[in-house]
Amino acid sequence: MGRNEDAMDLVSGRTRVFGIVGDPIEQVRSPEMFTAEFRRRGRDAVLVPIRVRPGDFEACLSGLLKVANLDGLIFTIPYKARALPLADTLGPNADIVGAINALARAASGWKGDIFDGLGCVEAFRRRGVSFANKRVMLLGAGGAGSAIAVAVVFEHPKSLRIYDPDPARAEALMGKVNRVDARIAVAIGDPTIAGIDVLLNASPVGMLDDARMPLEVERLPRELVVFDAVVTPERTPLLAVAQTCGCMTIGGREMMRGQIDAMVDFFGYRET
Amino acid sequence: MGRNEDAMDLVSGRTRVFGIVGDPIEQVRSPEMFTAEFRRRGRDAVLVPIRVRPGDFEACLSGLLKVANLDGLIFTIPYKARALPLADTLGPNADIVGAINALARAASGWKGDIFDGLGCVEAFRRRGVSFANKRVMLLGAGGAGSAIAVAVVFEHPKSLRIYDPDPARAEALMGKVNRVDARIAVAIGDPTIAGIDVLLNASPVGMLDDARMPLEVERLPRELVVFDAVVTPERTPLLAVAQTCGCMTIGGREMMRGQIDAMVDFFGYRET
Repeated sequence: MGRNEDAMDLVSGRTRVFGIVGDPIEQVRSPEMFTAEFRRRGRDAVLVPIRVRPGDFEACLSGLLKVANLDGLIFTIPYKARALPLADTLGPNADIVGAINALARAASGWKGDIFDGLGCVEAFRRRGVSFANKRVMLLGAGGAGSAIAVAVVFEHPKSLRIYDPDPARAEALMGKVNRVDARIAVAIGDPTIAGIDVLLNASPVGMLDDARMPLEVERLPRELVVFDAVVTPERTPLLAVAQTCGCMTIGGREMMRGQIDAMVDFFGYRET
Repeated sequence: MGRNEDAMDLVSGRTRVFGIVGDPIEQVRSPEMFTAEFRRRGRDAVLVPIRVRPGDFEACLSGLLKVANLDGLIFTIPYKARALPLADTLGPNADIVGAINALARAASGWKGDIFDGLGCVEAFRRRGVSFANKRVMLLGAGGAGSAIAVAVVFEHPKSLRIYDPDPARAEALMGKVNRVDARIAVAIGDPTIAGIDVLLNASPVGMLDDARMPLEVERLPRELVVFDAVVTPERTPLLAVAQTCGCMTIGGREMMRGQIDAMVDFFGYRET
């Protein structure tokens, strides 16, 4: 009985509907995390998984966006770039990155933006760390790294050095961030800690059972702020070394938390 | 915290999704009732409200039916007839009624059927009452009445008399039920209790604050079985008189319960 009453509590005819669109979809954590956050903020809304096969994407989304009580969608792999044209208006990050991970209903249609990088900036803000005038090294220029680089450059750092094992990816990302603010010194460089204030790992090195470091160092200066976008494990090899050296460390879960909060704001459910 | 944990419990990336499609949608009770029944049967599934405006129906549904983890839809006002062409195969009731209120994913595509009448038959079956060889009077030949008449005629009653204040509606329904079994005596007639074993009210008379009876009688023979499709109030004026006279009475909530159980079976979640 208790379970049934919970269910009755959770969804009714008045519930506003959100979804996360991806393929596959079983592994996503957004349904429970966003639904919990909606309810924590006192909103009658639910976020459900929506699996769309690649051959159906445009036709399926065109229909979905006509659902009158659907208020927002999240996009995950493999659809972040392909979802971009669904937005009637784009946030500044999405415009530069060329991808969105969220669509929200707005007075003027659907507004799209990407929060993968904004979550990192938000995590730093909550720890009292600003990127303004900092020298930043970014490891990894893939999807996550690109979004993080763009969001960071909007915060006016002094410089950004980008490393990726694929030089073409690093070049492409440099081109994007230069569009944000040409006065910021953006360079492609080797993965070292020389002359930087903030180290950002957005590569998959250190994920799950990977015991490697994303750069070759044994010690880190204690003034360095070290961020790792990897969510699991929470204490990556890089963060473990940083903690041993007395550095401030910020992890993937803090980024995720910052991202969820920013996205729920974007969906119109700002905390009052 | 308790509420948030319930939410996390209710929906995840593995949750199968169902919906009820209508316009308006805020008043529907299916989201809580079906979600509770799914969970009572141990299934990880949720049913959400889906409001679709009339001008968007075909385009929206064409997209929705491509969602790979959507396993079924319920249709309510004003879409029961308009949803019929979405089904790849039709159950016998839907084929005769010319409308569906449920679509379920099947190996061969989407199967459609209408359960408005099957819920009435199921409610009778649970009370141990068979329609076989009974003389039945039906009041009301609208959407609910049509579905009930068709489902009842599949149960081989001796005769069915239909009354509707609009003779054309009664005529149209007579044509439909004659397609089921031409050997059953179907007639259009006045709303009386002469020569019947079962009285079915499928008219809206007696709903909410309407204190009227759907037919002019002061007493009913105690052998008569009296059914009222009206859900609110539970004890309609007709059922109140029937109870006073010692008749067996079956109400709209029992029909709704029978319908939900039959539909959850149809969605593939049969109790084991």
